[in-house]
Amino acid sequence: MAPEGRAKMGMIKKRSVKAGLPPGSYVHVGEKQGENATVTVVRYNESTYVEEVTKDLAGCIPAQDETSVVWMNVDLVHQVDLIARIGECFGLHPLVIEDILNTDQRPKIEDFGDYIYIVFRFLSCNGSSCSVESEQISLILGAGYVISFQERGLGVFGKVRERIKSGKGRMRSSGADYLAYSLLDAVVDDYFIVLERLGERIETLEDGLVANPRAATLHSIHGLKRDLVFLRRSVWPLREVLNGLQREDCSQIGKMTRVYLRDVYDHTIHVIDTLETFRDTISGMLDIYLSSISNRLNEVMKVLTVISTIFIPLTFIAGVYGMNFRHMPELEWKFGYPAVIALMLGVALVMVMFFRRKKWF
Amino acid sequence: MAPEGRAKMGMIKKRSVKAGLPPGSYVHVGEKQGENATVTVVRYNESTYVEEVTKDLAGCIPAQDETSVVWMNVDLVHQVDLIARIGECFGLHPLVIEDILNTDQRPKIEDFGDYIYIVFRFLSCNGSSCSVESEQISLILGAGYVISFQERGLGVFGKVRERIKSGKGRMRSSGADYLAYSLLDAVVDDYFIVLERLGERIETLEDGLVANPRAATLHSIHGLKRDLVFLRRSVWPLREVLNGLQREDCSQIGKMTRVYLRDVYDHTIHVIDTLETFRDTISGMLDIYLSSISNRLNEVMKVLTVISTIFIPLTFIAGVYGMNFRHMPELEWKFGYPAVIALMLGVALVMVMFFRRKKWF
Amino acid sequence: MAPEGRAKMGMIKKRSVKAGLPPGSYVHVGEKQGENATVTVVRYNESTYVEEVTKDLAGCIPAQDETSVVWMNVDLVHQVDLIARIGECFGLHPLVIEDILNTDQRPKIEDFGDYIYIVFRFLSCNGSSCSVESEQISLILGAGYVISFQERGLGVFGKVRERIKSGKGRMRSSGADYLAYSLLDAVVDDYFIVLERLGERIETLEDGLVANPRAATLHSIHGLKRDLVFLRRSVWPLREVLNGLQREDCSQIGKMTRVYLRDVYDHTIHVIDTLETFRDTISGMLDIYLSSISNRLNEVMKVLTVISTIFIPLTFIAGVYGMNFRHMPELEWKFGYPAVIALMLGVALVMVMFFRRKKWF
Amino acid sequence: MAPEGRAKMGMIKKRSVKAGLPPGSYVHVGEKQGENATVTVVRYNESTYVEEVTKDLAGCIPAQDETSVVWMNVDLVHQVDLIARIGECFGLHPLVIEDILNTDQRPKIEDFGDYIYIVFRFLSCNGSSCSVESEQISLILGAGYVISFQERGLGVFGKVRERIKSGKGRMRSSGADYLAYSLLDAVVDDYFIVLERLGERIETLEDGLVANPRAATLHSIHGLKRDLVFLRRSVWPLREVLNGLQREDCSQIGKMTRVYLRDVYDHTIHVIDTLETFRDTISGMLDIYLSSISNRLNEVMKVLTVISTIFIPLTFIAGVYGMNFRHMPELEWKFGYPAVIALMLGVALVMVMFFRRKKWF
Amino acid sequence: MAPEGRAKMGMIKKRSVKAGLPPGSYVHVGEKQGENATVTVVRYNESTYVEEVTKDLAGCIPAQDETSVVWMNVDLVHQVDLIARIGECFGLHPLVIEDILNTDQRPKIEDFGDYIYIVFRFLSCNGSSCSVESEQISLILGAGYVISFQERGLGVFGKVRERIKSGKGRMRSSGADYLAYSLLDAVVDDYFIVLERLGERIETLEDGLVANPRAATLHSIHGLKRDLVFLRRSVWPLREVLNGLQREDCSQIGKMTRVYLRDVYDHTIHVIDTLETFRDTISGMLDIYLSSISNRLNEVMKVLTVISTIFIPLTFIAGVYGMNFRHMPELEWKFGYPAVIALMLGVALVMVMFFRRKKWF
Repeated sequence: MAPEGRAKMGMIKKRSVKAGLPPGSYVHVGEKQGENATVTVVRYNESTYVEEVTKDLAGCIPAQDETSVVWMNVDLVHQVDLIARIGECFGLHPLVIEDILNTDQRPKIEDFGDYIYIVFRFLSCNGSSCSVESEQISLILGAGYVISFQERGLGVFGKVRERIKSGKGRMRSSGADYLAYSLLDAVVDDYFIVLERLGERIETLEDGLVANPRAATLHSIHGLKRDLVFLRRSVWPLREVLNGLQREDCSQIGKMTRVYLRDVYDHTIHVIDTLETFRDTISGMLDIYLSSISNRLNEVMKVLTVISTIFIPLTFIAGVYGMNFRHMPELEWKFGYPAVIALMLGVALVMVMFFRRKKWF
Repeated sequence: MAPEGRAKMGMIKKRSVKAGLPPGSYVHVGEKQGENATVTVVRYNESTYVEEVTKDLAGCIPAQDETSVVWMNVDLVHQVDLIARIGECFGLHPLVIEDILNTDQRPKIEDFGDYIYIVFRFLSCNGSSCSVESEQISLILGAGYVISFQERGLGVFGKVRERIKSGKGRMRSSGADYLAYSLLDAVVDDYFIVLERLGERIETLEDGLVANPRAATLHSIHGLKRDLVFLRRSVWPLREVLNGLQREDCSQIGKMTRVYLRDVYDHTIHVIDTLETFRDTISGMLDIYLSSISNRLNEVMKVLTVISTIFIPLTFIAGVYGMNFRHMPELEWKFGYPAVIALMLGVALVMVMFFRRKKWF
Repeated sequence: MAPEGRAKMGMIKKRSVKAGLPPGSYVHVGEKQGENATVTVVRYNESTYVEEVTKDLAGCIPAQDETSVVWMNVDLVHQVDLIARIGECFGLHPLVIEDILNTDQRPKIEDFGDYIYIVFRFLSCNGSSCSVESEQISLILGAGYVISFQERGLGVFGKVRERIKSGKGRMRSSGADYLAYSLLDAVVDDYFIVLERLGERIETLEDGLVANPRAATLHSIHGLKRDLVFLRRSVWPLREVLNGLQREDCSQIGKMTRVYLRDVYDHTIHVIDTLETFRDTISGMLDIYLSSISNRLNEVMKVLTVISTIFIPLTFIAGVYGMNFRHMPELEWKFGYPAVIALMLGVALVMVMFFRRKKWF
Repeated sequence: MAPEGRAKMGMIKKRSVKAGLPPGSYVHVGEKQGENATVTVVRYNESTYVEEVTKDLAGCIPAQDETSVVWMNVDLVHQVDLIARIGECFGLHPLVIEDILNTDQRPKIEDFGDYIYIVFRFLSCNGSSCSVESEQISLILGAGYVISFQERGLGVFGKVRERIKSGKGRMRSSGADYLAYSLLDAVVDDYFIVLERLGERIETLEDGLVANPRAATLHSIHGLKRDLVFLRRSVWPLREVLNGLQREDCSQIGKMTRVYLRDVYDHTIHVIDTLETFRDTISGMLDIYLSSISNRLNEVMKVLTVISTIFIPLTFIAGVYGMNFRHMPELEWKFGYPAVIALMLGVALVMVMFFRRKKWF
Repeated sequence: MAPEGRAKMGMIKKRSVKAGLPPGSYVHVGEKQGENATVTVVRYNESTYVEEVTKDLAGCIPAQDETSVVWMNVDLVHQVDLIARIGECFGLHPLVIEDILNTDQRPKIEDFGDYIYIVFRFLSCNGSSCSVESEQISLILGAGYVISFQERGLGVFGKVRERIKSGKGRMRSSGADYLAYSLLDAVVDDYFIVLERLGERIETLEDGLVANPRAATLHSIHGLKRDLVFLRRSVWPLREVLNGLQREDCSQIGKMTRVYLRDVYDHTIHVIDTLETFRDTISGMLDIYLSSISNRLNEVMKVLTVISTIFIPLTFIAGVYGMNFRHMPELEWKFGYPAVIALMLGVALVMVMFFRRKKWF
């Protein structure tokens, strides 16, 4: 199994560590991705923008006035105590804290009345051959605030922060729900980059498929298939998440934002559609690969067999005139030898022509 | 990957360009299909018909009286500013403008209350082997007006315009919903032409399948399969679109027009059914192809092996009488040589007859 | 592609002729099946029975009294003007007329309030090998009347007419809905005849499968598969049609008749079930065929290879004593020759026994 | 096709006999299973138990008092007139009578208000290899009475009768719905016996699969598969039947009995689950079989080819010293012959060792 | 079939023993897992904790006060009379007792109003290769009490008891529904251990797949597949169970506990997702295995055939000069022999180079 394959399976291993612990235990499940988490608090309304970066959270964020939106972003989630403190400040359910810490969640949405908890995955390509990696992102959307937790802190939300700062677009005049939408949208937009890279990987593989099929190709195809399964598992449940957010009874989402969520939903469907097409392409490639491999072998065997088949009758003729009978008139003929050589050439020629006409080689 | 295959995958590439841009950004996603867009405005009611063609939209269309229908058709959608201006005139949502510009949408319907936004795809055959191409068509259906956006402007709506002009049929006496229906119907009708061409392509392939199976055939089959997947993705969601249009709560569609939409719906189901049948046929062709290839090889190997098998015992007999033993009475016989030749012929004959009876060649 | 296959695909071709025509255009899509249509009008109630046959429909049928049922049957539907005139008389929607004329409809039901329009397909076997053919039948069920349109007029409704004439059963005392049910039932009953014939075709194929597998068998299997797909497409939507007829809000159908429709529904499910079983059987046959073909080839190759393998060592021994060394003591032995012959026989015997014990031939 | 396969398909043949008959015609569809039907009437309440056996039904059963339950069991259903007379006595719908007579029904439930009509199938094993057979059982559950019709009368209901007679359990104190449940339960319980036998058949086949794969094994596997398909068709719809019986609006079933029906429902799910597992096992067996067959052949071909490959170079060496050149110094050597023999042994040894190390045989 | 496979199938055998018994019969279905059952009764509230262990249940547990929770755990379920007595004490339905005794239930939930009956399966690994085993666990959740029945008593609930005893977490302050949740959670947490072990098994198999594919590998793959099917059957229905518990109308479950149940539900989905990924991986392994096996064989055959093909023409040349013609000038040449040897070497060299360049070996 390739290293990345193991990493993907590694999730299960980590999860099993938690077996037997009571449901309130906070344990970080996942690889430790860096040193200390960075907490960035952005507070903005139509006229003001304040940004604060801290390594440690001393006290809770003071209550916000009605018009401004607070966005707290936590970069790395392996600092259990930090996450737990944030949870207490905002009155989050212990199970939400647990889910934030366990970085192998399937995308989902949970409505706790006061706030909505959304989990989804950021996808990126690793290395030149685009081995797909994923990072868990958790969002808490409450009245006037959004908290985002990133497993690795890859800066995917940097562009959104810039957009708020610059004051362009509708960000500053919209509420926390629009901010949550923007974060979702930023992540889903990046899916298309991964798809493009995967598409290139498929094309490269496809070009080499007929030209030079090798045993390694089969492994590449299966690696690709595994990545697609992995992608599918990360993207497919997002559909349900977005459906849930658009539902009428989801109180944290304003009507205006629902139209935008429908747009993200359409993009997600687009991604899923493309993944399905990729899967079809790969399954077709497997057929072509197997067929190419078998065709090549068959060609070789056919040529070899044709060679044997031409020489065996000739060897027989030579054998006949190698017999030691006393009375073999041909042996005494003056032109016996050239005649037999001519016969042999003739037989060979007839056979070659026959095989050629039959298109056997 | 064949060029058209790349083109189809190219959509994803283009899409990834947009990653990171805020949701209000208008970027044309798709290939630039020509120079300048043509805007055709048709205004008609039971008695009058006015047609105006312009390259540029100076101001908004003035408010229309209650009885007449306005149809604005835009030929090419890569002129971002033109589309944006139209959007402002008619008060379209920014996301609708975005979707019109991104020409890789999946067919969908969105009801914004004042107007309905419908996206679907026009399908056409390219070249003699009918490589399927698709063009995005966007419709805005509002109170008394229809705006249609074509990715390439292939004139598919020309026949509808002629029909309005001529005043025949119910077009002139019906509302904007009937016009929207007519445009949908014109596009779906053309699907049958693509199906017919594909059917011919399948037949051609099928005829050559048994007569002359080659490695290239496998690629043709997979190319066909890919085109079918592409078609399916373009047509399948149209079902949902038409279902949505027929729903009771869709205010822009009159009851009378619903009956007609049901008819387009039936045609769409017909197209999907035919695509499924094509898929079954192609999967059967794959079986027959693989079986034919393997049968041909087997026949060759069998014949070659039969030839070897006949000559090997004969060579053995020749070898026996080529031994140099001093005491080999047969060698001294007067008719030893002809006797052995006769023996060889006999053995060969018996073997040939045996193989024949067993139907081995 | 076999001729019947082409005919089935031909439907799509015909359909494409209509592309671009306005939705009100009446064009016959399908093969012209005979010369002139025959219109048979039957009017009956509990006490009276009147039958009229005409080639031409001069005027509309006069309004009927409340107790009697009118059944108008049209034999061939290619006479566009005749069908159009009937449509006007009974106030049918133009799209219904179109659907009656396009003889490649998928079974469906449409409730227009005043009347229900039902399309389904009559199935029959053609030739001794039962190549399945289908004919479109359209029913209009209104208050007190039924109009039936047959694509070819195969007399499938003759038995129903006889039953009305004879006055036996509940036909005469029941309404138009019972008549419509009887026509549906007559058609579905005939499906079982087609199934029986197909079952025989499968059995014949299956018997020859192991005894004598040939390349042609593969084509027969795929022909059968194609016929099953064709049948499935014709029967499967009928389920929905019958479900629709049984629905409470279907005003033209009396409660009593619904029980009978449930019975036809059960028969349809029975037909579908049997088709699924046939499909499973055929897919199993394909496995067995491919396995038989490959087994036969393997047997041949094994026997041939065994023959070669026995003779090659013998030829080697002969070759050894054919060498021209001056000092080869065996050559001088008196019984050298018989000894070598015995050695050869021994070697051959040992090999044959070895191969036998290993069950290699 | 094996005889039992034909019998299963035979159903369709019989059914086609009915095509064209009016819906009121009573015709027995199925094989005649014995001579005369036996009608057993049991009448019981908490205190009394009366059993009557008759070959002929003279009059209708007199109206029963409110507390007692009447169970009428009919053994063979081919006596059309007897069944028809029972139908009249109990006021059954003609279509119910038809369904009782047609012994190829799919399990179903029909609620006629006054009574419920239930059809399901009793399954049994035939012969030592457990070829699955099925028998149709029809139940009429009305107010205070149950009528059961068995296609063959295999005594499956004997144990239920014993239980009523003995007065143990809740039978005597419960109503007709509990009796109907008990009959259903008795039949479903017997499914487990068939499953057990099938499980043994699978194990036997599996044991022989690797030890001794033969062409006959493929037929056994497909026979098994066919039996599973047959079973699945008989059991799957029973789920729906039991769901229907548990529905609130099913007036004939008391609340207490619904709990018991849920239990039978669970058993049915259990049976279906096991059938699915069997199907998976069989499909795995097919893989292993094909792989074993091909492995065995490959082993044979490899060994044979190795033998040839060893002797062909040796024969070449012998051929070289069989050449008749005047000047071949080796021929004159004293130990030329033994040297060449040694050379040959050496070449053979090297090849054998090479092949061994490569694990080629 | 491997022993564990038989054990899994054994369930069906045991079940068939019950066929024919009335629905009230208590029979233990499953293997007897130990000697005598141990009944542990734990009674706790926020302040007190009492634990009692008994081998025999003398009388019923006395009625509990309102604030405390009673948890009765029964270790082995083969003691029919003990289970029956408990059933009487708590007023359980006879069918519940039956289901507790039949240890081959599919996970399910049944709401009897006063109490809920939940069945699910504990999974564990057996042996170093992790052959999956399962144990049935039944829970009765009533007002203020939980009864748990374990098939084998593997101590999976020990940790939960410890947690109650220690008084940490919310256990002591929560009701019986939270206890039931904790038991479910403990079992589902252990699923991850089984998944981890299975993941290792898959990795081990995968590593050996390419390095050393053997016939035994195919059996390992199928064994793995069977275990996955078994797991899937045990886990899949748990989804429905947990859905059922979260439903609003489930009176025994408090609103607070529902949030926790949603968490277990998510874990179950996670397990199912991983199982699906495993299944995909295994099916890919099967492809790679078959391809590896066939590649290895093809390599062998190709090399052998190349060897034969090189020597056959050489043997022919030797045969030519072994002919006994009187007039063969080459034979008289002084350097005839070395010339022919050189010719042979040349031919061999050309052929080897040709095959090399073609990459045939």
